[in-house]
Amino acid sequence: MRKVFVLNGPNLNLLGSRELEVYGRDTLDDIADALVTQAKGLGVELDVRQSNHEGHLIDWLHEAARSGAQAVILNAGGFTHTSVALRDAIAAVVTPVIEVHLSNPAARESFRRRSLVSGVCRGTISGFGSLSYSLALDAAARL
Amino acid sequence: MRKVFVLNGPNLNLLGSRELEVYGRDTLDDIADALVTQAKGLGVELDVRQSNHEGHLIDWLHEAARSGAQAVILNAGGFTHTSVALRDAIAAVVTPVIEVHLSNPAARESFRRRSLVSGVCRGTISGFGSLSYSLALDAAARL
Amino acid sequence: MRKVFVLNGPNLNLLGSRELEVYGRDTLDDIADALVTQAKGLGVELDVRQSNHEGHLIDWLHEAARSGAQAVILNAGGFTHTSVALRDAIAAVVTPVIEVHLSNPAARESFRRRSLVSGVCRGTISGFGSLSYSLALDAAARL
Amino acid sequence: MRKVFVLNGPNLNLLGSRELEVYGRDTLDDIADALVTQAKGLGVELDVRQSNHEGHLIDWLHEAARSGAQAVILNAGGFTHTSVALRDAIAAVVTPVIEVHLSNPAARESFRRRSLVSGVCRGTISGFGSLSYSLALDAAARL
Amino acid sequence: MRKVFVLNGPNLNLLGSRELEVYGRDTLDDIADALVTQAKGLGVELDVRQSNHEGHLIDWLHEAARSGAQAVILNAGGFTHTSVALRDAIAAVVTPVIEVHLSNPAARESFRRRSLVSGVCRGTISGFGSLSYSLALDAAARL
Amino acid sequence: MRKVFVLNGPNLNLLGSRELEVYGRDTLDDIADALVTQAKGLGVELDVRQSNHEGHLIDWLHEAARSGAQAVILNAGGFTHTSVALRDAIAAVVTPVIEVHLSNPAARESFRRRSLVSGVCRGTISGFGSLSYSLALDAAARL
Amino acid sequence: MRKVFVLNGPNLNLLGSRELEVYGRDTLDDIADALVTQAKGLGVELDVRQSNHEGHLIDWLHEAARSGAQAVILNAGGFTHTSVALRDAIAAVVTPVIEVHLSNPAARESFRRRSLVSGVCRGTISGFGSLSYSLALDAAARL
Amino acid sequence: MRKVFVLNGPNLNLLGSRELEVYGRDTLDDIADALVTQAKGLGVELDVRQSNHEGHLIDWLHEAARSGAQAVILNAGGFTHTSVALRDAIAAVVTPVIEVHLSNPAARESFRRRSLVSGVCRGTISGFGSLSYSLALDAAARL
Amino acid sequence: MRKVFVLNGPNLNLLGSRELEVYGRDTLDDIADALVTQAKGLGVELDVRQSNHEGHLIDWLHEAARSGAQAVILNAGGFTHTSVALRDAIAAVVTPVIEVHLSNPAARESFRRRSLVSGVCRGTISGFGSLSYSLALDAAARL
Amino acid sequence: MRKVFVLNGPNLNLLGSRELEVYGRDTLDDIADALVTQAKGLGVELDVRQSNHEGHLIDWLHEAARSGAQAVILNAGGFTHTSVALRDAIAAVVTPVIEVHLSNPAARESFRRRSLVSGVCRGTISGFGSLSYSLALDAAARL
Amino acid sequence: MRKVFVLNGPNLNLLGSRELEVYGRDTLDDIADALVTQAKGLGVELDVRQSNHEGHLIDWLHEAARSGAQAVILNAGGFTHTSVALRDAIAAVVTPVIEVHLSNPAARESFRRRSLVSGVCRGTISGFGSLSYSLALDAAARL
Amino acid sequence: MRKVFVLNGPNLNLLGSRELEVYGRDTLDDIADALVTQAKGLGVELDVRQSNHEGHLIDWLHEAARSGAQAVILNAGGFTHTSVALRDAIAAVVTPVIEVHLSNPAARESFRRRSLVSGVCRGTISGFGSLSYSLALDAAARL
Repeated sequence: MRKVFVLNGPNLNLLGSRELEVYGRDTLDDIADALVTQAKGLGVELDVRQSNHEGHLIDWLHEAARSGAQAVILNAGGFTHTSVALRDAIAAVVTPVIEVHLSNPAARESFRRRSLVSGVCRGTISGFGSLSYSLALDAAARL
Repeated sequence: MRKVFVLNGPNLNLLGSRELEVYGRDTLDDIADALVTQAKGLGVELDVRQSNHEGHLIDWLHEAARSGAQAVILNAGGFTHTSVALRDAIAAVVTPVIEVHLSNPAARESFRRRSLVSGVCRGTISGFGSLSYSLALDAAARL
Repeated sequence: MRKVFVLNGPNLNLLGSRELEVYGRDTLDDIADALVTQAKGLGVELDVRQSNHEGHLIDWLHEAARSGAQAVILNAGGFTHTSVALRDAIAAVVTPVIEVHLSNPAARESFRRRSLVSGVCRGTISGFGSLSYSLALDAAARL
Repeated sequence: MRKVFVLNGPNLNLLGSRELEVYGRDTLDDIADALVTQAKGLGVELDVRQSNHEGHLIDWLHEAARSGAQAVILNAGGFTHTSVALRDAIAAVVTPVIEVHLSNPAARESFRRRSLVSGVCRGTISGFGSLSYSLALDAAARL
Repeated sequence: MRKVFVLNGPNLNLLGSRELEVYGRDTLDDIADALVTQAKGLGVELDVRQSNHEGHLIDWLHEAARSGAQAVILNAGGFTHTSVALRDAIAAVVTPVIEVHLSNPAARESFRRRSLVSGVCRGTISGFGSLSYSLALDAAARL
Repeated sequence: MRKVFVLNGPNLNLLGSRELEVYGRDTLDDIADALVTQAKGLGVELDVRQSNHEGHLIDWLHEAARSGAQAVILNAGGFTHTSVALRDAIAAVVTPVIEVHLSNPAARESFRRRSLVSGVCRGTISGFGSLSYSLALDAAARL
Repeated sequence: MRKVFVLNGPNLNLLGSRELEVYGRDTLDDIADALVTQAKGLGVELDVRQSNHEGHLIDWLHEAARSGAQAVILNAGGFTHTSVALRDAIAAVVTPVIEVHLSNPAARESFRRRSLVSGVCRGTISGFGSLSYSLALDAAARL
Repeated sequence: MRKVFVLNGPNLNLLGSRELEVYGRDTLDDIADALVTQAKGLGVELDVRQSNHEGHLIDWLHEAARSGAQAVILNAGGFTHTSVALRDAIAAVVTPVIEVHLSNPAARESFRRRSLVSGVCRGTISGFGSLSYSLALDAAARL
Repeated sequence: MRKVFVLNGPNLNLLGSRELEVYGRDTLDDIADALVTQAKGLGVELDVRQSNHEGHLIDWLHEAARSGAQAVILNAGGFTHTSVALRDAIAAVVTPVIEVHLSNPAARESFRRRSLVSGVCRGTISGFGSLSYSLALDAAARL
Repeated sequence: MRKVFVLNGPNLNLLGSRELEVYGRDTLDDIADALVTQAKGLGVELDVRQSNHEGHLIDWLHEAARSGAQAVILNAGGFTHTSVALRDAIAAVVTPVIEVHLSNPAARESFRRRSLVSGVCRGTISGFGSLSYSLALDAAARL
Repeated sequence: MRKVFVLNGPNLNLLGSRELEVYGRDTLDDIADALVTQAKGLGVELDVRQSNHEGHLIDWLHEAARSGAQAVILNAGGFTHTSVALRDAIAAVVTPVIEVHLSNPAARESFRRRSLVSGVCRGTISGFGSLSYSLALDAAARL
Repeated sequence: MRKVFVLNGPNLNLLGSRELEVYGRDTLDDIADALVTQAKGLGVELDVRQSNHEGHLIDWLHEAARSGAQAVILNAGGFTHTSVALRDAIAAVVTPVIEVHLSNPAARESFRRRSLVSGVCRGTISGFGSLSYSLALDAAARL
């Protein structure tokens, strides 16, 4: 069975309790549950994780590649704008990585305009709230 | 019946004949045909247009808003990076606009890193080839 | 009879329906009507136009110059910040051009800080809502 | 009777003797006299002042606000481009402030492109020589 | 017979009447007539056009490519410095495009230092007045 | 008895009447009274002053140094971001200077991100409203 | 009893052994002991921690918020200048965060001039050596 | 008798007591005395002044021009790098102004690299300590 | 026996499987084995480690210093360009640190041009593939 | 007989052996031979030189001017982007200088986007390989 | 007898024939003759040289230092703005170097605003025409 | 026998007499002698040269390539940061070039952060004093 990793970066564990007007009311568990249901319909196995540690995200990207995953859906949170190491990890693995964001970084602070990871991802989906994840999963299943 | 406009900017009429390694082999007609089929399944009426004139895209955005469209899917091509007027048009209408790109601008020339329109769009989908449009239509139907 | 052109750029056809807190409640027709009345009192003939096409604004500037107009009042909208071609058109004609803005660009996004056209206009009036046009007409009549 | 302050910044006391091709032949007294006449017709009392001291301009803005002035017309001269303190003074008072310039800063040195005060003024009028003041007084009377 | 398009951008219709010290006294018709004569000697058919609309230039580049033209000589005027869409059009067609300028942009305002189109043109000829066109036609005939 | 100067820059005389959401409801007199009381408890004599003139602040810094003051608490207001002269004055005196701000400049306009004076002050306290002054006085007493 | 977290970032475990002229001779334990004593006097419970891992600081900020802490005193060390993720964590929790620095970043390398976290902290205290922490604790108790 | 003004800006009253390794041990009075002696030998009358107020320097420049002075020697101190108003004053008067500096600004902080006044001064002499003034006086006498 | 630490940052565990044209075919184990052999000949004990966590690299730098290591050879990978914390750790320890890179960062993306760590390292060796490590070990033995 | 200098800068002696895909297969001798033949037909005497020394190019520009040459054709190679001295030499002589490049600098590294010499040359021809020289010679003969 | 070198960089051999409005009518020989006369009065031996080769200027700076010269007066011409090597040469010798310019670089093109050599020179004299050299010689004799 | 060129740029002839704290006490002859001895042990012939002329370094790079040298060790001194011509020479030859520096440019002035030559060299070794050369020779022998 094809496997897709859904990796979530810093502060995404606070979803549903943090800046609701920006990120919406769904918790990460809510999003994960909906994605698992959607994945079943697509015949895809999901592995949803979250960490506030940049190193874990890099470790997990390596693990996804080693395990032959079909794709990685990555919401790198604040690391999106600062982590060359994460960019290098994405570039180093052959597994396609899809960048997602709940909010629209282009409508926020100027330091969120630069994504270090976009350039090495297969594609980017941002601004649709939890629907961003759902669209990304559809894309992952159709790659 | 809900209506969605799919507006395409400069040079997209050349799809299928231009820089195939960047934009893929589908013509704009191929993409439009597939979208129309998908739209029917979603109970949505489509209006697909293309122009090399910035003014037409602005006129059409106004028209979409006046006609009470459900959403606009916009691939602004090269205007993405240069047109404040287009940005103002998107900001001026209440109709949600979804930005799509076939390729991943972040992986290309540095002048494509800046999108003037992203900040006023509902969301952005880029890098998936013609699948970008299909995902955008799904998103439009679920807004 | 002396003639003054009032040229309006992209999205100004939406005045009165768009971002009312920025641009006010007057439609472009309201503004035009008031200006025509004011013009009569000043013994000036008005020609008020609007287009979302940069090319039309350039064509009209040429036309105003050819027709020996007394002055052009120009609200270039979003082209203000991006159009070298419009700047060149203003510099190319001997007719004095007065730049107007309803809102105060200096109080808005940073990309609105740069005006490509100001440097070749006779003067600039901005921030007074529709009163900006009225003051510009007074100025045009007194040049 | 409504009162309007006309505050003039550094070097404006030299008007009529300085760089005539840029600033014109009118002295500050000439301009003040014409404005006083115009003000009478508008039923407005004028208080015209000039100083080369940034601190005086700030003091006077405070005084204008305390005295319940209808508006302040401000030609901040070279402070326009360098004074955060003046900007803060304008932002701190509720009296509307109208920025005027005799010349067109956009047509001059690049360091004159940035106005620190424009963003907190009600509006800006520049480039019309002494007519800039006259238009500003009309605007002040109609606020 | 080999065909060469000579496409002229905004304000070039004013040649001979505009800023003579920069652009010279030849009108666009003068230049076109001389080029047609030169083209005959080279066994080349010419199609000389001008528009103030960016979209027309893009349409015409597409048309030149579709018609199997030998080369396009392009004076993009002010669009040279602002149009990613025009750049994309040049990159999208296989027809070689030769950039010409009457004046020397490097000797003018700093915003004319950046050419968005140069990087995708075959070559550039600038600064020789109407001789720039003549040299470009020689080059086009020898490509 | 040890003496501490509390020097306040432009517009701080408006405290309590200006942008209350940014600066709070305390007037400068309120703050001064509370500080004087606190100073007595610390065995410190206070000299609280305010001016909108950069030159006065420089004069007073010199005077504080000449009088052998224990420390200077300085809220330079808008001069913080623009005055090399004030920086030089602080660097020129051996009296330690403590920079205070009521608001948090880092959360405001980008031109407030740069402090010319911080680099030559002993330390900085900002963002705590009138408590910033109180903490600074404690620090001054413990230097 | 009210609880305050004192979170210390990278390399602060070396205090007292590292660059003494910049950071002083106190070890982190010395600082912690003095703060605990001060806290008792203020009726506040302290939790002092240090990590070289950005992820731990983010985890701890979340923990402080969950535990209903009164305030967090944060010396983010080198992360101050590079971590959007830490900034997001501070913005995401309602607990007020006070930024402290032993040294004065404004007097050091230019890359220390930019603080990503200041803009979302309640206030900042820097440059007073270990006294910075003591002042911050006073502030925390008085929030 | 020809008259030369020697105008000194902020903090120069501290000469001889301030940062001796940068500015040397001479007080401003020492420098003035030596210049007066030198001036007598050159048949020139001197007027040496100092102020920490930018406005005074501007007033004095105007006064020097009105009094028909032969030249102004100006050490604008920290205003050198920040004052457009002072630049405008120099540009506005026909009296030649010679810029002097005791130290070499190019060997100091980067914000001292930019001189706003140099471009409108007749010439600049910097880095020679009090000898800079003496050379400037020689130059003034020979203009 | 003298001890040298060889610390490897993010993604270097993928050596031999990742972007072979950039990093070569040697795995990190291959490199470590060859270095251990070389170290024996030099009478040096090696400790080779790798982590994708910035915090581990900082911890290990501290440990190397505490253990009295002769030198640290550091390939910080992507952290080279983003980590002020790592820079601070290197600056904080007296153990000399030698920066190595397999590839030549200057020949790659522009964001790899800036090394935050180079300025505090003893020296840098880059571009020689695994030979970079071998040269660094020779250097470490000869410090 | 009219004389034209063809001056070639650094590394152009390697033509035909260096980066053939960029510069083509012609050696500098091949180009010179063809130009001499072309020159005879135009009744022009040629002097073709090459040096890797910036000073020689400057000396030769002076010599060309002293000898009353009709024009100089200059391929300044890498000095194009770095030499103010060469720019000054071109500006200092009345002989018209035509800048040529074999390749299209705008299509190469970003540091090749800036030409210090273009602004003082009569015109520029670039991107046509050895044809660039031939067109320049035609232009030189027609000046 | 004390010796002073007067080193002149590129294009200064053209003095008196080049851009007379910028550099004046004196030839370099005129200036040298006057300086030799002045030097005799000061008991100083002069060695005046000129070269268009950066390397010669560096060689001569070394020679001046080896020969125990009292000072070097250096007009580096266009190398002023581009030569790190020349800067290094000045920094490497103990002989004091005085930078002179005939014109005022601050009043010219923006690329002349940056002097790479000023920061390592003893002082700078610019803008006085050939008087700049004379003042520099006086300064050299009084060092 | 394999031959290696060791090319030294401007001011390196002063080694041992210049800024000893930066460059060490070894003269260039000391370094050359040690390298010759080391080279013999490696079976390599050395050719060590120095010049203050950029043109000589370019000539010598060409010569090294023509003579079939094994490698070039290049310390370009100040040209490292300014010479596109030198960069082009390195890119033009197939001989591998190893960049060396005695000091660590990253720890010095900001204008030394940019190396124009690094990107086209095989590798870089910097910061180890004369050991940098020795390591480079080892590397050259092992290429």
